[in-house]
Amino acid sequence: MWGGRFDRGPAEIMEKINASIDFDRKLYAQDIAGSKAHAGMLVATGILTRADGDQIQAGLDAVKAEIEEGRFVFRKDREDIHLNIEARLAELIGPAAGRLHTARSRNDQVATDFRLWVRDALDGLIGQTTGLVAALLAQADAHTEVVMPGFTHLQVAQPITFGHHLMAYVAMLERDIGRLRDARARMNECPLGAAALAGTSFPIDRHMTAASLGFDGPTANSLDSVSSRDFALEYLAAASILGVHLSRLAEEIVIWTSAQFRFVSLTDAFTTGSSIMPQKRNPDAAELARAKVGRVIGALNTLLIVMKGLPLAYAKDMQEDKEPTFDAAEAIELVVAAMAGMIADLKPNEAVLKAAAGTGFSTATDLADWLVRALNMPFREAHHVTGRIVKLAEGKGIDLDALSLAEMQAVEPRITDAVFGVLSVDNSVASRVSFGGTAPSGVRTQIAAARGRLGL
Amino acid sequence: MWGGRFDRGPAEIMEKINASIDFDRKLYAQDIAGSKAHAGMLVATGILTRADGDQIQAGLDAVKAEIEEGRFVFRKDREDIHLNIEARLAELIGPAAGRLHTARSRNDQVATDFRLWVRDALDGLIGQTTGLVAALLAQADAHTEVVMPGFTHLQVAQPITFGHHLMAYVAMLERDIGRLRDARARMNECPLGAAALAGTSFPIDRHMTAASLGFDGPTANSLDSVSSRDFALEYLAAASILGVHLSRLAEEIVIWTSAQFRFVSLTDAFTTGSSIMPQKRNPDAAELARAKVGRVIGALNTLLIVMKGLPLAYAKDMQEDKEPTFDAAEAIELVVAAMAGMIADLKPNEAVLKAAAGTGFSTATDLADWLVRALNMPFREAHHVTGRIVKLAEGKGIDLDALSLAEMQAVEPRITDAVFGVLSVDNSVASRVSFGGTAPSGVRTQIAAARGRLGL
Amino acid sequence: MWGGRFDRGPAEIMEKINASIDFDRKLYAQDIAGSKAHAGMLVATGILTRADGDQIQAGLDAVKAEIEEGRFVFRKDREDIHLNIEARLAELIGPAAGRLHTARSRNDQVATDFRLWVRDALDGLIGQTTGLVAALLAQADAHTEVVMPGFTHLQVAQPITFGHHLMAYVAMLERDIGRLRDARARMNECPLGAAALAGTSFPIDRHMTAASLGFDGPTANSLDSVSSRDFALEYLAAASILGVHLSRLAEEIVIWTSAQFRFVSLTDAFTTGSSIMPQKRNPDAAELARAKVGRVIGALNTLLIVMKGLPLAYAKDMQEDKEPTFDAAEAIELVVAAMAGMIADLKPNEAVLKAAAGTGFSTATDLADWLVRALNMPFREAHHVTGRIVKLAEGKGIDLDALSLAEMQAVEPRITDAVFGVLSVDNSVASRVSFGGTAPSGVRTQIAAARGRLGL
Amino acid sequence: MWGGRFDRGPAEIMEKINASIDFDRKLYAQDIAGSKAHAGMLVATGILTRADGDQIQAGLDAVKAEIEEGRFVFRKDREDIHLNIEARLAELIGPAAGRLHTARSRNDQVATDFRLWVRDALDGLIGQTTGLVAALLAQADAHTEVVMPGFTHLQVAQPITFGHHLMAYVAMLERDIGRLRDARARMNECPLGAAALAGTSFPIDRHMTAASLGFDGPTANSLDSVSSRDFALEYLAAASILGVHLSRLAEEIVIWTSAQFRFVSLTDAFTTGSSIMPQKRNPDAAELARAKVGRVIGALNTLLIVMKGLPLAYAKDMQEDKEPTFDAAEAIELVVAAMAGMIADLKPNEAVLKAAAGTGFSTATDLADWLVRALNMPFREAHHVTGRIVKLAEGKGIDLDALSLAEMQAVEPRITDAVFGVLSVDNSVASRVSFGGTAPSGVRTQIAAARGRLGL
Repeated sequence: MWGGRFDRGPAEIMEKINASIDFDRKLYAQDIAGSKAHAGMLVATGILTRADGDQIQAGLDAVKAEIEEGRFVFRKDREDIHLNIEARLAELIGPAAGRLHTARSRNDQVATDFRLWVRDALDGLIGQTTGLVAALLAQADAHTEVVMPGFTHLQVAQPITFGHHLMAYVAMLERDIGRLRDARARMNECPLGAAALAGTSFPIDRHMTAASLGFDGPTANSLDSVSSRDFALEYLAAASILGVHLSRLAEEIVIWTSAQFRFVSLTDAFTTGSSIMPQKRNPDAAELARAKVGRVIGALNTLLIVMKGLPLAYAKDMQEDKEPTFDAAEAIELVVAAMAGMIADLKPNEAVLKAAAGTGFSTATDLADWLVRALNMPFREAHHVTGRIVKLAEGKGIDLDALSLAEMQAVEPRITDAVFGVLSVDNSVASRVSFGGTAPSGVRTQIAAARGRLGL
Repeated sequence: MWGGRFDRGPAEIMEKINASIDFDRKLYAQDIAGSKAHAGMLVATGILTRADGDQIQAGLDAVKAEIEEGRFVFRKDREDIHLNIEARLAELIGPAAGRLHTARSRNDQVATDFRLWVRDALDGLIGQTTGLVAALLAQADAHTEVVMPGFTHLQVAQPITFGHHLMAYVAMLERDIGRLRDARARMNECPLGAAALAGTSFPIDRHMTAASLGFDGPTANSLDSVSSRDFALEYLAAASILGVHLSRLAEEIVIWTSAQFRFVSLTDAFTTGSSIMPQKRNPDAAELARAKVGRVIGALNTLLIVMKGLPLAYAKDMQEDKEPTFDAAEAIELVVAAMAGMIADLKPNEAVLKAAAGTGFSTATDLADWLVRALNMPFREAHHVTGRIVKLAEGKGIDLDALSLAEMQAVEPRITDAVFGVLSVDNSVASRVSFGGTAPSGVRTQIAAARGRLGL
Repeated sequence: MWGGRFDRGPAEIMEKINASIDFDRKLYAQDIAGSKAHAGMLVATGILTRADGDQIQAGLDAVKAEIEEGRFVFRKDREDIHLNIEARLAELIGPAAGRLHTARSRNDQVATDFRLWVRDALDGLIGQTTGLVAALLAQADAHTEVVMPGFTHLQVAQPITFGHHLMAYVAMLERDIGRLRDARARMNECPLGAAALAGTSFPIDRHMTAASLGFDGPTANSLDSVSSRDFALEYLAAASILGVHLSRLAEEIVIWTSAQFRFVSLTDAFTTGSSIMPQKRNPDAAELARAKVGRVIGALNTLLIVMKGLPLAYAKDMQEDKEPTFDAAEAIELVVAAMAGMIADLKPNEAVLKAAAGTGFSTATDLADWLVRALNMPFREAHHVTGRIVKLAEGKGIDLDALSLAEMQAVEPRITDAVFGVLSVDNSVASRVSFGGTAPSGVRTQIAAARGRLGL
Repeated sequence: MWGGRFDRGPAEIMEKINASIDFDRKLYAQDIAGSKAHAGMLVATGILTRADGDQIQAGLDAVKAEIEEGRFVFRKDREDIHLNIEARLAELIGPAAGRLHTARSRNDQVATDFRLWVRDALDGLIGQTTGLVAALLAQADAHTEVVMPGFTHLQVAQPITFGHHLMAYVAMLERDIGRLRDARARMNECPLGAAALAGTSFPIDRHMTAASLGFDGPTANSLDSVSSRDFALEYLAAASILGVHLSRLAEEIVIWTSAQFRFVSLTDAFTTGSSIMPQKRNPDAAELARAKVGRVIGALNTLLIVMKGLPLAYAKDMQEDKEPTFDAAEAIELVVAAMAGMIADLKPNEAVLKAAAGTGFSTATDLADWLVRALNMPFREAHHVTGRIVKLAEGKGIDLDALSLAEMQAVEPRITDAVFGVLSVDNSVASRVSFGGTAPSGVRTQIAAARGRLGL
């Protein structure tokens, strides 16, 4: 395979560690598309005869059909997808196949294939995530008035609405989509024609190859073209951040479906049972979504480590770019799909949420704010006064609005019964009309704006 | 500090693990700027009297002066930078200080402070990296004709030019700058006014606060505003990828300055000696740059782990966002600065590079390409023939161009003495005029284009 | 500083990236101990005169006193702790100081210092973790009869006891202590005397130096001695695994203290309030413990990355070993201390736990097991029958033991009223007497055994 | 599958994210071994009849045969390896199969299976690593007298021997083997019988099951048994550290085989060619070994992330423990095997090494040490004097031993011609007889000692 300089074949372990065909076969469509574009350009620039070009195009189509129909025999001794396809092409069309590799190298070939694959992965993930946003918007829209406790530190903080809570994830996912789009725009340059590392003396037209593969243009430096994998790193980084966002939603679903919370219900479609405990109804998909994010982060970490400290240009280390990327892509796609399914499937238990919203002195901030507004008390003092009233209620085992006016006045004599107007959960929620706040009116505005931005 | 509900203070270890003043004091300028913007808005919307507002503005200026003049006493029992400043403000101006915290919470306050800090870090890193690109362009420009061996697998591959090699890094760094700019654009929204998590019932004007702090506008959802740290994650991801690129350049400098390579020299300014070996001249800065990238990746990993699986809204876990970010920022800034210094300092050893470029049968590909062009041989066959000629030369212990025509013809009779025209290093380099290739003319084009894009 | 070969000093950025005195000053005690042991050996072997040795010992004691009394001026131009101390020694005792560095290098010196530091960290962490185990044992012992729901997937699974739950952490921590002890035993070899990398021609006695520093002996290969940091990696790995265990306990404390669970209470000593919400009582220490584990994992990752791919022997990259290790050590020590404090502080709410233990059909497995035992039904069939009975109860909104016999017999006619004996939570728990199971008797056995193993 | 409580099947995406049969089929042998041990114990304790037990044993053997002969149909709707085997068993032997799952759960079943798999992986890796040590010892033994330059910072430091250099890796690998052995000893406890999490009311004998599976005994706490994966984490940590060591050796092989170093040669068995450059001979196996270590570290990171913050007991997140572990195991096993192959294959180029050992003023430390010994000069002064002599030689472009005595005396008049005795590479190496040093005599001692410790 290495031409005339080698006397012996590789050691068995060498072949085993070296061969990539078990995983890079995933790139067959990209490899064939790249070869067809390259061959087309070689003909257009007169480097290849039209007759040879036609044979190559037809032969590559035949190879593709063999692969897609399961008739292709992938051979480990042909090492990788490039040599498997080229060798099969030679079997099919003869010597013309040997002209295809003119003015290119496996180095620029694999850089192109992998870039095309990652571009598809980016497009797919953008579409999927937009679908998840649509599911969130639908649930948010249907529940703009459903009150629930807002938490900080998993302690009841202030009443919010279910729609508002879901819209927080819409905000995160919109930024995630932005990151994926930026990555796609930045990586859409074609390395083909960089050859081994230095370019070529053949009069190729890299702009033509780039255009025929849907790239915005050729890459600017041939060494960089074959040496860099930041397009994959950026994809993995964007997927990791997206994954972190979804892991948080997954954690909430796990907590919300516990017997102690019962905030939402999932149907049989998204729960599983136990081999031993007949009563179980486990939110497995949420747990797996949460866990799989660890794998995406692990893959990002792996590829950063693999690339760190490699001298230019191509090093074989870079063959280890694909498996972590493939694995992470599969994981994040499963996570987004499962979250979209669960979001559509879940049903908030409105009565439970409303009851929970009123416990834990959730309107204490409203009381403090009332003291500021009605009595012109500095907020710090109002905070302190409210704390003492909370303590009084806690001691009695009752909620704030169950205290009598006299009891409150014992702490702060200037309190009037107008205070009761801010102690209800619905009033609390309705009052938070600041931009981005939890008032149903504001949440509806947020929903409409997000729909506008994403064209949903 | 927690108002009227607590009877006892915290345990000693609680205070120790909880206090953040030792590191978040770094945010003092951002915290004061945020408070000033908030107070200004409270006055403009009539929530605060002008008199109170004026006192607060003057008081905050005084606090800032105390900090910058080293007169401020940071107190651990005041936990964090926010409470340290507010408490000192109260000492300076009395009760009006207690009105500053109206319609905000530490949750939106710290989100704003940290975002301002990261924005500054992004701006700084963009500037620094542009400076490094300028240094690379200057060296590339000065050495467009200097030939050297291009490597793949650290084995001699094909001759390239020193300028071309450096321009590969320019291409990487341009994308890095793009990533930093995209991150900056995406994160430039103001969380202030999100309050604890739900927004506020005070009639605040978040657009006004946002504008006065240089943000493009307010964030769209108050829960997201206090819960998300993807702006820091994206900064760390971009810094990690940039770092990986620079670690590769650092590795090359380490290898290039070895006694066996001697490709470049660093002056005394960028080498250090040994405590025991008097002859040593170590490229410490390159090694440290390479290593510090590990820390940047570690910080990215840390923050992804910290954020994974946190339910909304703010959780105290998020206090652990700052130290890894600060540490990574310091590391990457040192790395970029050190690389800029080394690039300006280093001197290619042109004679060594040229000699090395001609060894290792570096023009074997040129020979194969010549066989394709001159004899219309399929590339695969040309590759094989060349391999046999290489083996012949290797056996004789000589380079390709030292073979006689007769010796080559013994392998392939159709070879003519025109072949010698492609076996020289200079001709090889000059012939690679494909877009992005190593020919000096092409490298000059690359340099001019990069200068144009970056305005350098 | 580098002797006679250098003409110029370092660039400013070089000095900045290179100097380690800001963090390696932490090693002053280890450095001085190492120097004293080295000097003692040099005298014993006749390489140094007793007079010089005495001066050096006295001088080093004086330097140590200066540092501990805050009188020592650390100088960045003296780069690191080794040169700072040696230079100060020279100021104090004159030329004899110049003889201390005979037969050693900074390479073996820093390897020794850092190893001594990590050994202390291991000892400290073993002690701390043992203390946490003691706290867990005390709580477990006090609550062997307190029933609570056992969860899988955060769904109620089967009733367990509070003591049993805590003993799961004792089992994990015992293995963690084992890992720390193994690490300590493996790393207790002394690198001093390896010199730069090759050993020395001076007739030193490495066994003597090793013994005087408490090592089991000298390291076996001088290159390895100065090149390896697996002792730090193993410490960080053990700390990471320990941290993961504690992050799980922290997560449970956060969930358990939520308003929806209320399984345990923390006092004011381990909760904090809010700057805006006067009612809040947040489990900050648990959240911080959970988060800081991310930093420990990040540090492990960092050092693995730093060390990967470094050629032998010492490379300056290895200077980046200390800060991540110091940072992780501080984090894990805070985590263990905070957890020990919280475990001692927390109080299970027994009534809430008992009520929760009886909900969610937690004894469904007991019913299935009864069907197996009493009716000789295959478990798979018993599981199915129980599932139908659970569904019946769920439809009626009641618990299993509230179903009538007739209702159960409608599903499986052979059920007798003996079944009610296994449907109570207390009976369920008491029945699980298999080795390691949740029955109070078994838990008491576990507690006694753990106390025996750890001598507590 | 979940018995009588579920009405509907899972959503398609739920099934897809949930099913583990695609990867956990790897555990079939462990699963069957565990089931056979469990069934044997159930019979011995009278929980199962002998007749049922015999049917189960025979049925499990039949299932195993089907799998190993490729006749078994793995079904995704049967989710995992446990249910696939149990369902097939039911098809083969009927109702008795339904009695096998008495007194166990999938939770303890998978914990046992995976532990058995990791134990095998540990045993395999210990054996493989010992084989690599044997290869290193053989090469070291054959080259105890071959001098080469020792490097620090990849700059020539002092002459060492090739055998000494390889023995540094033996020292690292011995500690790696120790870590693997410690991990094996710590994890060798059997979780089977922990059931879902609480133990069981059936009168099982966990000691018996443990013994029949080769465990030292049963685990001590049933919750811990099903919740913990530190045995896998410890394996991954030990594999990561081992991997880091081997990545360093791999980096050295890459550098050593470069045209500039030519320190060692690999045969055709461990090099590969290029698709475009006919002269190439790339050290791919070394590069892949270096890169795959990134994957092992990534897997460790992944599993630490997955486990962090999970409440007890089993969570579905833990299903994500297997793929990273399997992937890392395959990677590290390939790395160790490839390194063993390369070490046996490589041949040091003795003449090149010797020449390189003498360049770069490698004996400058010997000169400084001579000044200390012969002239009683403090080492610091000797270091300075030597630095000036090095500078003199460097200026003349010659090596130290090419300076005349007069030239040296111009720097330090007391130097005599005895100095030339320490300036040769061979003398330098021979003089370093300190314990662990590079002198051939010492290296032979190291080799013998290592052979003794490992029984090689």
